[in-house]
Amino acid sequence: MIRPLLRCRFSTKFDLFHNNPIPANKRRLVPTSGIYPKGFKVGSIRAGIKPPDSSQPDLVLVASEIPASGAAVFTKNEFCAASVTMSRELVRRTQGQGIRGVIANSGCANTLTGQAGLDDAWAMSREAHRHLVNSPLETARHDPSVLVMHTGAGAQRLPIKNILQSIPPLFQSLGNSHTHWLNAARGLCTTDTFPKLTSRRFSLPSAPETEFSLAGLTKGAGMVHPNMATTLGILCTDAPVTPPALQQLLRNAADETYNCVSIDGDTSTNDIVAMLANGAAAAKGTSPIDLHGGSSSDQSPDFVAFQRILSEFMAEMAQLVVRDAEGASKFITIRVRGSPSHAAGKHIASVIAKSVLVKTGIYGQDANWHGILAAVGYALLETPFEGQGIIVPEQTSVSFVNASSRGELVKFFERGVPVPVHAGLVKQIMEAEDVETVIDLRDDGSCTSAARQEGEAVYWTSDITHDFVSINSGIH
Amino acid sequence: MIRPLLRCRFSTKFDLFHNNPIPANKRRLVPTSGIYPKGFKVGSIRAGIKPPDSSQPDLVLVASEIPASGAAVFTKNEFCAASVTMSRELVRRTQGQGIRGVIANSGCANTLTGQAGLDDAWAMSREAHRHLVNSPLETARHDPSVLVMHTGAGAQRLPIKNILQSIPPLFQSLGNSHTHWLNAARGLCTTDTFPKLTSRRFSLPSAPETEFSLAGLTKGAGMVHPNMATTLGILCTDAPVTPPALQQLLRNAADETYNCVSIDGDTSTNDIVAMLANGAAAAKGTSPIDLHGGSSSDQSPDFVAFQRILSEFMAEMAQLVVRDAEGASKFITIRVRGSPSHAAGKHIASVIAKSVLVKTGIYGQDANWHGILAAVGYALLETPFEGQGIIVPEQTSVSFVNASSRGELVKFFERGVPVPVHAGLVKQIMEAEDVETVIDLRDDGSCTSAARQEGEAVYWTSDITHDFVSINSGIH
Repeated sequence: MIRPLLRCRFSTKFDLFHNNPIPANKRRLVPTSGIYPKGFKVGSIRAGIKPPDSSQPDLVLVASEIPASGAAVFTKNEFCAASVTMSRELVRRTQGQGIRGVIANSGCANTLTGQAGLDDAWAMSREAHRHLVNSPLETARHDPSVLVMHTGAGAQRLPIKNILQSIPPLFQSLGNSHTHWLNAARGLCTTDTFPKLTSRRFSLPSAPETEFSLAGLTKGAGMVHPNMATTLGILCTDAPVTPPALQQLLRNAADETYNCVSIDGDTSTNDIVAMLANGAAAAKGTSPIDLHGGSSSDQSPDFVAFQRILSEFMAEMAQLVVRDAEGASKFITIRVRGSPSHAAGKHIASVIAKSVLVKTGIYGQDANWHGILAAVGYALLETPFEGQGIIVPEQTSVSFVNASSRGELVKFFERGVPVPVHAGLVKQIMEAEDVETVIDLRDDGSCTSAARQEGEAVYWTSDITHDFVSINSGIH
Repeated sequence: MIRPLLRCRFSTKFDLFHNNPIPANKRRLVPTSGIYPKGFKVGSIRAGIKPPDSSQPDLVLVASEIPASGAAVFTKNEFCAASVTMSRELVRRTQGQGIRGVIANSGCANTLTGQAGLDDAWAMSREAHRHLVNSPLETARHDPSVLVMHTGAGAQRLPIKNILQSIPPLFQSLGNSHTHWLNAARGLCTTDTFPKLTSRRFSLPSAPETEFSLAGLTKGAGMVHPNMATTLGILCTDAPVTPPALQQLLRNAADETYNCVSIDGDTSTNDIVAMLANGAAAAKGTSPIDLHGGSSSDQSPDFVAFQRILSEFMAEMAQLVVRDAEGASKFITIRVRGSPSHAAGKHIASVIAKSVLVKTGIYGQDANWHGILAAVGYALLETPFEGQGIIVPEQTSVSFVNASSRGELVKFFERGVPVPVHAGLVKQIMEAEDVETVIDLRDDGSCTSAARQEGEAVYWTSDITHDFVSINSGIH
């Protein structure tokens, strides 16, 4: 039996988990077309994992027609989901070679389910693999070859029979149209209010004529129950990359994108971002992007160029996650510059991004620069950076970006001294959906621009609202 | 001019910052009498720091009739208030000898006010000192001798003229009745819904016949604006303690009480807990409690006994702070036992206490043990304890205390496996105002009691509610 593919109806209404339409202010974030990498097919289906009243797909397959290089980054949570344990093991065994796809389900997180849950994850992987090698897509045999991702409610077993029975029709649903990709993105959704998909073309210095592409699916943070923020990301490219280079590129990019996002400060048990590179768009005989030595200065121009492209692309994906943070009314960018140590600057940005008082204050359209400074002031306590003189109140400034005025910086606190800001200007800055603050730890007055500076640390976060509390408490 | 003392009207209505009555469920926390230490007087007055529509005092003096030993613990926030910088310096200069009192104001936090703000703090201290040495209380001269505390809105100057002019009538208001002490506690309040005061009698092993007493004032967490949780604590005893012993006793007790409290996870710029010991109840010739060597095993029986008394007493004070957490509906106790390292166990407890998802879940009366385990699972990442094998899922259990059933432990997760719990029992446990969870990292099945175990770490926290968001965002 082939289940009918769900049709995309995002123009006026988009059924998600609760069959709600996409909010008006989110529609601009859903692409109406895309440029998808060669040699990949994606499918999605309802396998009965989500509640029966949901019209969303809950089982997704992203498949490469040829064996691909694969890489993944995983949550470090020690109570991780079966998908994390299993897929980490798969990457270890294969060393990222001969990867054929990713099978992902939403609606059940398969956490705290012990060996039985782990067996289920392996069963999903093996069954998908078996169909891949029996399908006309097959060109080589590798076992195991399919990564697994789960997101949804925790501490319950997967309906594994339903899932395994749904794999044949899932294969039947494979395709490479924009609608296929968008439906796959829908299939990752849980409390998301819109599907998260992006794609782009690019070329590499060694083959400026060759057109490659890169596509990414991701999901927003949050589970209705049991209150666990999970993000998943699946990236596909038709550029040729060796497994070690792909792992390094993905890890570097994740460190400055997905690892710079905080919704509620809780690290999920299920987070996985995986990437496949199948080289299907490369001209014959092209050398893949490879890793040369350990340091970034040793790398080839292609590696360096692709690193930049991937980091920008994953920043866009990670920002989509924050754009759909549970109950959020604001998209908040936090930039920390002037830190003698980049790691310390990133840590300070993360602490501000987790400050409940900063986040409730910004919800209330209060610039709350006192709260930001208070967070800066305790950020390095009990860290290796404590007592290193990184925080110097008399050299510290806090600004907000005035988006209505070509992004100029408006200082609220300059080198240790509060600066009076006209109430009308504060209102203008804080009323916007996008709020951006710049904390300069070594303000010498030379920089008045919000443009990203070398060495600066960036975090993206959202506000804590009444709706956030309603979603996570179930009290409305 | 002597301003009239505010009268205590707590039986049916208690005007606090917003002139609201004490909530019915908080009245039991306000004492109707007390046992106050000899040789101390306290006063409070309206100095025009709080808004004119407040009927609360906003300037408080706690004075010892004789020079006392003094000790204090301070916030480590690098953007600390002037009171913190000044009082820390005072303790350094005096080495805790000849301390005469604490002057505290509410309504203005005196943060981010630079040298001018610091001068104001010193001016408060000097003026209070000057009146003390001119007053009949005087027996010896020490300069400086008065600690300063601020709490209230940040980044604004104190109305220092009003404050200095109010010091003479503040001295006129001094007294040692229960009403004096309760009004002093009211004078520390900001967004508190009830004044926080406690006192007790005790004796020491070396003088079992002598009756000493210990009194403490404290304040709840939270400022309406700019969203900064501050706690202050002032403790007075008439037992004799040397300054070095007092500092050690206070630090030890603070580490397991005030430093085990989290409301919103933000470390204030203003926190100070100070203690005065004047020995006024000691028989002539009694040796004060002193510090012997560095380790706890070197200490005298009096030191050991007083440490236990002080820690219990300060636990009660710290719990009063959490009982009045902004917008909270729950008082949550988190116990982590079985950790190979006490410090790691305390860190895990602190991370659970800060988990926004755990706290919103408990607000929704969801036991949310998945969220607790997720927090345990990421608690030690990027800490010195990472990778030490402290978290072992198969040895971990999570229980909640069933208060209605003699405090028995109800396991929700036992040695890595979820345990089904009857919905009625979950409801009964989670409906209570007091919710207590026990996380056992090395559950060997031997312990079924919630009673505190040797080496166990405890944190007290509150839930995150719609009211919390309303208070901290200003959106209602």
